[in-house]
Amino acid sequence: MDKSTRQTFTCVGINNTISILKSKRFHIEKILILRNSKAEKHKMLNIALQSVSLNIIKKVNDIKQSASFKTQGISITFSGRLIYNEIQEYSQKEYVCLLVLDQVEDPQNFGQIIRTIECAGIDGVIYSKHHSVPLNETVLQVSQGAFVNMKFYEVTNIRNELKLLKKNNFWVVGLENSIDAKPWYSIEYSGKTAIVVGSEGKGIREKVLETCDFIATIPMQGITNSLNVGAATSAIVFERLRQKLEKK
Amino acid sequence: MDKSTRQTFTCVGINNTISILKSKRFHIEKILILRNSKAEKHKMLNIALQSVSLNIIKKVNDIKQSASFKTQGISITFSGRLIYNEIQEYSQKEYVCLLVLDQVEDPQNFGQIIRTIECAGIDGVIYSKHHSVPLNETVLQVSQGAFVNMKFYEVTNIRNELKLLKKNNFWVVGLENSIDAKPWYSIEYSGKTAIVVGSEGKGIREKVLETCDFIATIPMQGITNSLNVGAATSAIVFERLRQKLEKK
Repeated sequence: MDKSTRQTFTCVGINNTISILKSKRFHIEKILILRNSKAEKHKMLNIALQSVSLNIIKKVNDIKQSASFKTQGISITFSGRLIYNEIQEYSQKEYVCLLVLDQVEDPQNFGQIIRTIECAGIDGVIYSKHHSVPLNETVLQVSQGAFVNMKFYEVTNIRNELKLLKKNNFWVVGLENSIDAKPWYSIEYSGKTAIVVGSEGKGIREKVLETCDFIATIPMQGITNSLNVGAATSAIVFERLRQKLEKK
Repeated sequence: MDKSTRQTFTCVGINNTISILKSKRFHIEKILILRNSKAEKHKMLNIALQSVSLNIIKKVNDIKQSASFKTQGISITFSGRLIYNEIQEYSQKEYVCLLVLDQVEDPQNFGQIIRTIECAGIDGVIYSKHHSVPLNETVLQVSQGAFVNMKFYEVTNIRNELKLLKKNNFWVVGLENSIDAKPWYSIEYSGKTAIVVGSEGKGIREKVLETCDFIATIPMQGITNSLNVGAATSAIVFERLRQKLEKK
């Protein structure tokens, strides 16, 4: 049995709440609904709320506002496993893809990446415990509910984790500019694949890059040469999806 | 001669300033450098500053902070043409691609999209004057200097503009879920192409969609089905780049 970590989080917003309720992955601790708000009248939300016992839901006259996110009149507090200790995908037979974040520091980027890769059918995210943004409420919020459909692996040593993945028949592809790099579309992402992306400023660390089987690059066509890590991730995970769908 | 609009903007940050100076596209009106700041000691920046006459540069003890952006000790005020009135790409012969934004409202998304498409070799952006975020300082700032390498066309009627593009031998592809849609990678983006993406919540408007020659969709692989417009744009413009590079 996997000893995964149980944590408590609070998120706001209608879509987030619906995703969390629908997933049935979490223990719902508290739901606050603002009187006369958009949330109170929202049909889909009210249907989703029928799965929750009534004494958890409280109608209130005020919900704590955050600077960055609109509450839309609802907040939800829930607990459950988001972070797993053992990679669940080792036992899966084919077409598995994990994303590995090597020291991504910005919570907006982490959240957007979760949202993107969930749409692209990526199975889980490995990220480093140190020098990375943790899986906090901002990250979950930015992911717009996509986190409910994602497995997270927080590891102390990315390099060791990649070695373990390789022992378990994963191919490891690093996305980085390098003389050894091939264009991102000329690499096959079939079977068991792990895709590594690096931090916003510094890219993938040398020691981590050495562990990769292939290095992919997206040749820059402009002058600025500064592709956001979220946009680069989108390009590579949808290239993987293209290859997968075209094979069918 | 094209009567394009001349405007004045202020941006902050080292990369932005270097991009603006290097482009030589703008008239530099004022540069403020904070004493003992990162900017003051930055080598690349100081080289770029040699192209500016000294009386424009002022060393100061304080630079107005913005809530969202780090100044890094430098701000630059410049004027010039960003918005063109006449599409410059009509006369180009092959492999031209314009991005058309149908009512994108969020300045973060607009800025990120500029950054992404500049890296992907897109030639210009058409966006609607009404019900869209204007090309403001936030948008330029988020683009991280990529705007200097982009042409902007602000139009009153997207539908009419698409008709004009078609008359000028452009193929128009809309990115939208629709029963007529094909997978995004099965459409050819060769020659003269315009790619249309829609607003964050509502997608492309019906009347605009009717004008498209092809409709592309990115089939969602997850549960949330909510891909950010910036991530979707990244997927499609790098698919176009893949096709272009593979043909060579």
